[in-house]
Amino acid sequence: MSKSVLLLPGDGIGPEIVAEAEKVLRKVNEQFGLELTFDSALVGGSAIDATGVPLPEETLSSARAADAILLGAVGGPKWDDLEMARRPEKGLLGLRSNLELFANLRPAILYPQLASASSLKPEVVSGLDIVIVRELTGGIYFGQPRGIRELENGERQGYNTYVYSESEIRRIGRVAFETAQQRNKKLCSVDKHNVLEVTVLWREIMDELSKDYPDVELSHMYVDNAAMQLVRAPKQFDVIVTGNMFGDILSDEAAMLTGSIGMLPSASMNAAKQGMYEPCHGSAPDIAGQGIANPLATILSAAMMLRYSLDAEEAAKAIEAAVSKVLDQGLRTADIMSEGNTRVSTAEMGEAVLAAL
Amino acid sequence: MSKSVLLLPGDGIGPEIVAEAEKVLRKVNEQFGLELTFDSALVGGSAIDATGVPLPEETLSSARAADAILLGAVGGPKWDDLEMARRPEKGLLGLRSNLELFANLRPAILYPQLASASSLKPEVVSGLDIVIVRELTGGIYFGQPRGIRELENGERQGYNTYVYSESEIRRIGRVAFETAQQRNKKLCSVDKHNVLEVTVLWREIMDELSKDYPDVELSHMYVDNAAMQLVRAPKQFDVIVTGNMFGDILSDEAAMLTGSIGMLPSASMNAAKQGMYEPCHGSAPDIAGQGIANPLATILSAAMMLRYSLDAEEAAKAIEAAVSKVLDQGLRTADIMSEGNTRVSTAEMGEAVLAAL
Ligand SMILES: CC(C)[C@H](C(=O)O)[C@@H](O)C(=O)O
Ligand SMILES: CC(C)[C@H](C(=O)O)[C@@H](O)C(=O)O
Repeated sequence: MSKSVLLLPGDGIGPEIVAEAEKVLRKVNEQFGLELTFDSALVGGSAIDATGVPLPEETLSSARAADAILLGAVGGPKWDDLEMARRPEKGLLGLRSNLELFANLRPAILYPQLASASSLKPEVVSGLDIVIVRELTGGIYFGQPRGIRELENGERQGYNTYVYSESEIRRIGRVAFETAQQRNKKLCSVDKHNVLEVTVLWREIMDELSKDYPDVELSHMYVDNAAMQLVRAPKQFDVIVTGNMFGDILSDEAAMLTGSIGMLPSASMNAAKQGMYEPCHGSAPDIAGQGIANPLATILSAAMMLRYSLDAEEAAKAIEAAVSKVLDQGLRTADIMSEGNTRVSTAEMGEAVLAAL
Repeated sequence: MSKSVLLLPGDGIGPEIVAEAEKVLRKVNEQFGLELTFDSALVGGSAIDATGVPLPEETLSSARAADAILLGAVGGPKWDDLEMARRPEKGLLGLRSNLELFANLRPAILYPQLASASSLKPEVVSGLDIVIVRELTGGIYFGQPRGIRELENGERQGYNTYVYSESEIRRIGRVAFETAQQRNKKLCSVDKHNVLEVTVLWREIMDELSKDYPDVELSHMYVDNAAMQLVRAPKQFDVIVTGNMFGDILSDEAAMLTGSIGMLPSASMNAAKQGMYEPCHGSAPDIAGQGIANPLATILSAAMMLRYSLDAEEAAKAIEAAVSKVLDQGLRTADIMSEGNTRVSTAEMGEAVLAAL
């Protein structure tokens, strides 16, 4: 049975890095007889330029129909002055919410070949391998009411609503416990239980769920402490679960601990395991079009896609092994370049992965 | 004219570290003829134990009457199961809000003598000296409505409100611009302008204010990127300004970059420059009563108090010089101990500072 992949190159370096990932996908498609079909569509700034909106109807229906989606990145200074509803980010947020991609998995893994890229001391980060499970379709990102209103005294007030229901917490909690079960069986739930009522409910539900996963050791941590502990001793963590906003902040912090955010993939899944896969880094408009961006995070996102949404574990492993091999060969794009290695372009890196497959 | 200082030892290691800071304050009081008077009161868990509430009326009125307040820390596992309204943290939050201590200054400074304590590479953090200006009486910490309600479908939903008015943003913005003026004239305002309406207003007001401070270079950064940049290259920052929740997270992350959070003071001030001063670290219940806590953050908080609320710059400088001297002497409490230095107790560290004065 054939499965369909929707490619959403997006903005900035998005098209360059997705092009390399597409080549890699087409190659494993043949090698492993996966019967994948490919389609592509516009999202973000490029969709705004072509159609006036960041998430055209056509893109949304292609996305709904696809078995999996590979996204590059969205956004850039060109669209920075648009009002919020018309910004490129709304394309991304619209996909997440329309497809109910509530479970965002963001691994922070230190590749031994790139250990020196970290700003942390080697002993603090060597062997780092944690996963942040971020709730992605709720919380303050989507809470109503929201806006800017005028107060009686004539001044304006901005407001947003941070909101989670039991069922929203429960479903992301289950994903997190299951992720921990497949790893080192340690789950840390991050909240601000001493200040925010919404996270009082969050903690209560996590405690309740933990009874169903007796093999997983659950702990709780305040978000401010988590931000500290990630810097102090990140290897204390296995899996972290948290809400949308805290997850946005902590997953970026965790990714940066590795020093090579150009290497980190992510997955966003719904209850049907349909997923959208994208690199953790952004659209990097400053280097767009120069052919120097690192395509490996996108290629590794394609591997995650094969594993989680396309039932093709072997192909996923093959890609991951190929990436490891090109790193062993000393090939480096500019962002991860260091002395003694060979600097390559986006396309050269893609070719090297193909050759290693 | 005499000035009054209210001591709020609080919980955990609070009483031990405030005792040392009090000795130091009494000494400079004599040396510099400051005419300070001292009083003390209960707050947090110790107030709950004695009176049933975390912020007794008597404490609040003493706090209102004081020229400045020195706080140890509040909270501990003993009170963790209380409902939110009766928790020790409400004592702290109640003081902040009742006294309108909206401006929280949190320096993250790396002491050269303690450079090796950082988990970051020396070249990334050596000479680090940044200040986070955190809004402290608004935002999601105090926003209404808040709570846990039952939805029509029978499940519960937690909710909090993230809210800022123009005038709240403006007053913290002014403090931040003025702080930057006295330093390296670089201000980075941190928001989530691409997702949260309240921070669209935040950014607009910061831009507007920047016209009044042409000598300060204002930049904007998303909170997720700020969490990354603090790890990647923290020395790019001079002053950071942000809201209550983001400030809670980023100031703890920034503090931990130094590796010695036991060294970092903080100030919380209102429009009248009345202030509450406290160490950045918490109540550390695990080591309470053992006489091993580091009193230096509290002693340095006392120095900040002298500088900002008691108009005693000379005395503040004397304390800071004394702290630097004891570090040069190789004296270290357990948290900052490293090879080749001399381990001392809380009281010994306090005595050493007194002797160095
Ligand atoms: C682009 C932005 C809306 C997005 C987010 O905040 O979720 C990004 O930072 C991310 O983490 O995927
Ligand atoms: C104790 C807690 C309520 C407090 C806060 O979140 O503000 C603390 O973390 C701080 O940063 O001073």
